[in-house]
Amino acid sequence: MIVIMKMKASESNIDAVITRVKKEGLKVHLSQGEERTIIGIIGDERKLERGALNRMDGVDRVVPVLRPFKLASRDFQPEDTRIPINGHIMGGNKVIVMAGPCSVESMEQVMETARAVKEAGAHLLRGGAFKPRTSPYSFQGMGEEGLKILAAAREETGLHIVTEVMAPEQVDLIAKYANVLQIGTRNMQNYALLNAVGKTNMPVLLKRGMMSTIEELLMSAEYIMSNGNHKVILCERGIRTFEKYTRNTLDINAVPVLKELTHLPVVIDPSHATGKWTLVKAASKAAVAAGADGLIIEVHPNPAEAVSDGEQSLKPHRFMELMTEVRRVAQAVERSI
Amino acid sequence: MIVIMKMKASESNIDAVITRVKKEGLKVHLSQGEERTIIGIIGDERKLERGALNRMDGVDRVVPVLRPFKLASRDFQPEDTRIPINGHIMGGNKVIVMAGPCSVESMEQVMETARAVKEAGAHLLRGGAFKPRTSPYSFQGMGEEGLKILAAAREETGLHIVTEVMAPEQVDLIAKYANVLQIGTRNMQNYALLNAVGKTNMPVLLKRGMMSTIEELLMSAEYIMSNGNHKVILCERGIRTFEKYTRNTLDINAVPVLKELTHLPVVIDPSHATGKWTLVKAASKAAVAAGADGLIIEVHPNPAEAVSDGEQSLKPHRFMELMTEVRRVAQAVERSI
Amino acid sequence: MIVIMKMKASESNIDAVITRVKKEGLKVHLSQGEERTIIGIIGDERKLERGALNRMDGVDRVVPVLRPFKLASRDFQPEDTRIPINGHIMGGNKVIVMAGPCSVESMEQVMETARAVKEAGAHLLRGGAFKPRTSPYSFQGMGEEGLKILAAAREETGLHIVTEVMAPEQVDLIAKYANVLQIGTRNMQNYALLNAVGKTNMPVLLKRGMMSTIEELLMSAEYIMSNGNHKVILCERGIRTFEKYTRNTLDINAVPVLKELTHLPVVIDPSHATGKWTLVKAASKAAVAAGADGLIIEVHPNPAEAVSDGEQSLKPHRFMELMTEVRRVAQAVERSI
Amino acid sequence: MIVIMKMKASESNIDAVITRVKKEGLKVHLSQGEERTIIGIIGDERKLERGALNRMDGVDRVVPVLRPFKLASRDFQPEDTRIPINGHIMGGNKVIVMAGPCSVESMEQVMETARAVKEAGAHLLRGGAFKPRTSPYSFQGMGEEGLKILAAAREETGLHIVTEVMAPEQVDLIAKYANVLQIGTRNMQNYALLNAVGKTNMPVLLKRGMMSTIEELLMSAEYIMSNGNHKVILCERGIRTFEKYTRNTLDINAVPVLKELTHLPVVIDPSHATGKWTLVKAASKAAVAAGADGLIIEVHPNPAEAVSDGEQSLKPHRFMELMTEVRRVAQAVERSI
Repeated sequence: MIVIMKMKASESNIDAVITRVKKEGLKVHLSQGEERTIIGIIGDERKLERGALNRMDGVDRVVPVLRPFKLASRDFQPEDTRIPINGHIMGGNKVIVMAGPCSVESMEQVMETARAVKEAGAHLLRGGAFKPRTSPYSFQGMGEEGLKILAAAREETGLHIVTEVMAPEQVDLIAKYANVLQIGTRNMQNYALLNAVGKTNMPVLLKRGMMSTIEELLMSAEYIMSNGNHKVILCERGIRTFEKYTRNTLDINAVPVLKELTHLPVVIDPSHATGKWTLVKAASKAAVAAGADGLIIEVHPNPAEAVSDGEQSLKPHRFMELMTEVRRVAQAVERSI
Repeated sequence: MIVIMKMKASESNIDAVITRVKKEGLKVHLSQGEERTIIGIIGDERKLERGALNRMDGVDRVVPVLRPFKLASRDFQPEDTRIPINGHIMGGNKVIVMAGPCSVESMEQVMETARAVKEAGAHLLRGGAFKPRTSPYSFQGMGEEGLKILAAAREETGLHIVTEVMAPEQVDLIAKYANVLQIGTRNMQNYALLNAVGKTNMPVLLKRGMMSTIEELLMSAEYIMSNGNHKVILCERGIRTFEKYTRNTLDINAVPVLKELTHLPVVIDPSHATGKWTLVKAASKAAVAAGADGLIIEVHPNPAEAVSDGEQSLKPHRFMELMTEVRRVAQAVERSI
Repeated sequence: MIVIMKMKASESNIDAVITRVKKEGLKVHLSQGEERTIIGIIGDERKLERGALNRMDGVDRVVPVLRPFKLASRDFQPEDTRIPINGHIMGGNKVIVMAGPCSVESMEQVMETARAVKEAGAHLLRGGAFKPRTSPYSFQGMGEEGLKILAAAREETGLHIVTEVMAPEQVDLIAKYANVLQIGTRNMQNYALLNAVGKTNMPVLLKRGMMSTIEELLMSAEYIMSNGNHKVILCERGIRTFEKYTRNTLDINAVPVLKELTHLPVVIDPSHATGKWTLVKAASKAAVAAGADGLIIEVHPNPAEAVSDGEQSLKPHRFMELMTEVRRVAQAVERSI
Repeated sequence: MIVIMKMKASESNIDAVITRVKKEGLKVHLSQGEERTIIGIIGDERKLERGALNRMDGVDRVVPVLRPFKLASRDFQPEDTRIPINGHIMGGNKVIVMAGPCSVESMEQVMETARAVKEAGAHLLRGGAFKPRTSPYSFQGMGEEGLKILAAAREETGLHIVTEVMAPEQVDLIAKYANVLQIGTRNMQNYALLNAVGKTNMPVLLKRGMMSTIEELLMSAEYIMSNGNHKVILCERGIRTFEKYTRNTLDINAVPVLKELTHLPVVIDPSHATGKWTLVKAASKAAVAAGADGLIIEVHPNPAEAVSDGEQSLKPHRFMELMTEVRRVAQAVERSI
């Protein structure tokens, strides 16, 4: 951490900061500039509360030097994390595709979708049984019945299941049916939930909060990992900006940034990141070209009848077309699907 | 809801939309413009999934006409909601002030703060026993021991307690000690938690998500209210923008906007909304001048030693000064404190 | 400037940075942390191109220590800048109010407005003769004829004129008629224009870009000042965020922040910062409570017929009411109007 | 345009709106919902000032039906605009690459860069002679001398020149040397400048404002086109969001969105859109995969010595590598480079 003092900071201001830092067992290194004094802190600054230092008299700003995440950091684990799922490796050369409806609505809907996405080459089936909805009056999901439908689809197609868990008390139930636990964008900083999935041994698909920074996403991964579960898959699903034409703005930069900062696999959700089915194919190709390890895509046999997200869901034949085109891009960047 | 068709929409596209709408028991009203056809939907559009319509062939956009919230809407309850707390009325003429430390750290710290804020004229004591922290390595709160300290401070000073609840399973425990349940910004869309506090009979201080729109805040209030608990206090605590000098941007417009849209009381948190103690007084005065019903302010006897939020906490004598100045502004807008 | 090296930076990386810095005549100060090396730069870092350093091998980040503005900085001029306008002082105890229509539409409209705002206590008349409009098909302003109307209104009422200048070649013309030159939000970084008004001797009302940081606003002020004209009035007019209910988000924090960072006067435009006339009064009171030195408000005798900004314009009797209420808030913060 | 009345709107409120609309020669179409009345407006709504209607008593909201742009709209020109530049077609099958330094610094620097980017397969040379810089103390560009250097590089390499014009009075000078005029992000809504380049016959590369919506970008294109110059190339260069790790957020969604809304070619600037050279290659591949018609990339022979943007500039051998990889992606989406 570096403490930048104000121009008018007094000697006693500087001494007070030094005393405070030393109290935590850290060392200081003083540097007297022309206009300001700078105090460098040597040792593991993560022990020190940045806000408290910032609050001391004569302090202008406090700049962290270390990144706040460790387990998730590529500095501490240079090699990529590889997570086996259903015979595939998430985080390896193959681009893993998860597809399916936003909400589980019925056995027929899920079965039809599962068969179609399997045929098109998807590796996992996605579908929500517990749905976080902005309105209490919207469809809230089929609950355990929905989970049973997903399990039946796995039985038939062999596709593993990724589905959302919304509360710590649901973890055990959902773990009985699912293969990958999904944490939704609104729960990225629901720490009780992060701790709960961190105590399982299952792969976790952690969606970035729609207005969370990349660093915060990694800190949420760190929560899960610090509980012992290192099988975290990061998912960029679009962030909230001033642009209104699309539902969210796909932060495509996040792919190479995360590849620099962390060893965890990175997946893109082009459906939420655009909000319009006509844009999903272009966004998927961009994601793979940028280096994403996977895609999670909404597919529905009849989007105009979907109980949620119809607007951004692809029909099966469009998904088939998407897979064909994405496969060619994957090959161009020396990946397979 | 109004469906705006594309310029090139065909007759059969239009017919399909009409058929779809009628299927939900709603009526349509057709309007043929020079360039486009517009289909008005008559009846309670909340039944209809907007996304699904948006997805139909030939549809350009779907515009909702009704606001998605009802219980929270001033259209449906014109008179202000007034919530009695400890002999005061939240949502009445008096501006209610909640003050105290970010985190409960010790009996001494809380007692000293409680006495000071009481003397300065605060009406409630705030303090966190369970703390949502970005890092798993930061102090996570004292838990039940912290709640007991808060209760002891109430015992001595008579100040009621507002404290945060982070998970559904904590609600019962916290309800034993607290008078007002706080939902933090990261949990504004934690629906399991909203449902849980909605089932109590206690006032709920609902903080706006740092990334949430005013409409989403009202939808989260609607979740609590639809469970039977109408004692919801809305709290604007700053939103995330591109500006980096302050921790958040206080959306002061939200005060008069919420006064138009809803009958629920509106509180401002100038500590988080600025992130710097030097800005808290100006933000507090602005809040009261704009019509806020309350303030929630961080006060700490020794901010430079605080385990969290030291940077934005006021020392007791600064808080005293703030109360004096805010009181004058309150009088200028015909309110008392 | 502080250069934070990567964990894996080599000795030769560090040496290269040191050599580069010394080449500019600056000194370095090395600090070896547990995980990383930090290089402090001593001397006027403004000479050094931050991007270039950032680009060197082994460099993780470069953190500026000095603020990039000097003439506008309170560090270099502690006392407030006071700008005399028509017998009043902008930047003194009195809150200066500028009011009038968005666009000059006719002699009658301007005269009626000027008389009304004068009677209500405004100190300057605002009105646009050259209008920056998003659409080339919208009304673009009356041009010089509009300036003549404004001058006629000054003649009758004694109110000085503030009006927008959109291009360097308009400066001379507008300077003939106006008393204060306004730079609009879209032109905050139109450097040719900033240089042009910096070469006049007239007060300049510089509006913050709708998505510009406070630091960028001050850098634009610095452009004007570095040309010799120190009479710069800063104007916060709302920033662009994800919130859609209001046209912009009033960054009320900017008032106390600017009071800390700079000695220049700060004005708020509550009309653009809200976009709805029903919100203007609350925003104006908040602005004055937060410490603003002035207000600039849109008033129109018949907003429903206005050629621009009708939605956010006050009728004269509403403006009168606003002035009465704002005056009381001003007194509460020991200012007059 | 659709006018949505408030729940409590009176008959006379509704009549007043109807009268107002008819006054402009437009027709109305009334629709009485269960809770609200809706007034549809038939005819070219672009004649009507939306704000004024919004301001009328009893009006809740006004929703535009038509898009505000015409000349730039694909509704009015379905086929792609194709702009010939130096024997290539911008907007055709070939992806056009513009590369070169941020600033022209010297003859040697430009010549070395020009030869390198030509060898790597670039089609145009970029380079700034007039530089918009946040600070008045930063290098402001070499001016006409810089233009002469660019012309000399064209002479030798045959690469056409794209360079920025910052003010209307520079247009004639720059047109003498350049082949494509660039409007920078800070000038996207500098209407005097848009009108000036609209009066030339040269291709214009129009950069999206870092704070501008896609619709505003198209309205700025409309300004240029309404002056008679239809050779507009749109450029997405990253927008400003809350994410701080990258300089800007590349709005990759903008590519397919613009392809839907307009017939104009779309170019991506991965250098500014990321701000870090290590991210430029991934962003370039994503851009081409998403359907961009071109790229504009910063290349510098010695980025650590660059006077501007060194941090995001590629060395020539990295650019060569980028071109090889981007070429493969282009082929995968059936484009050539």
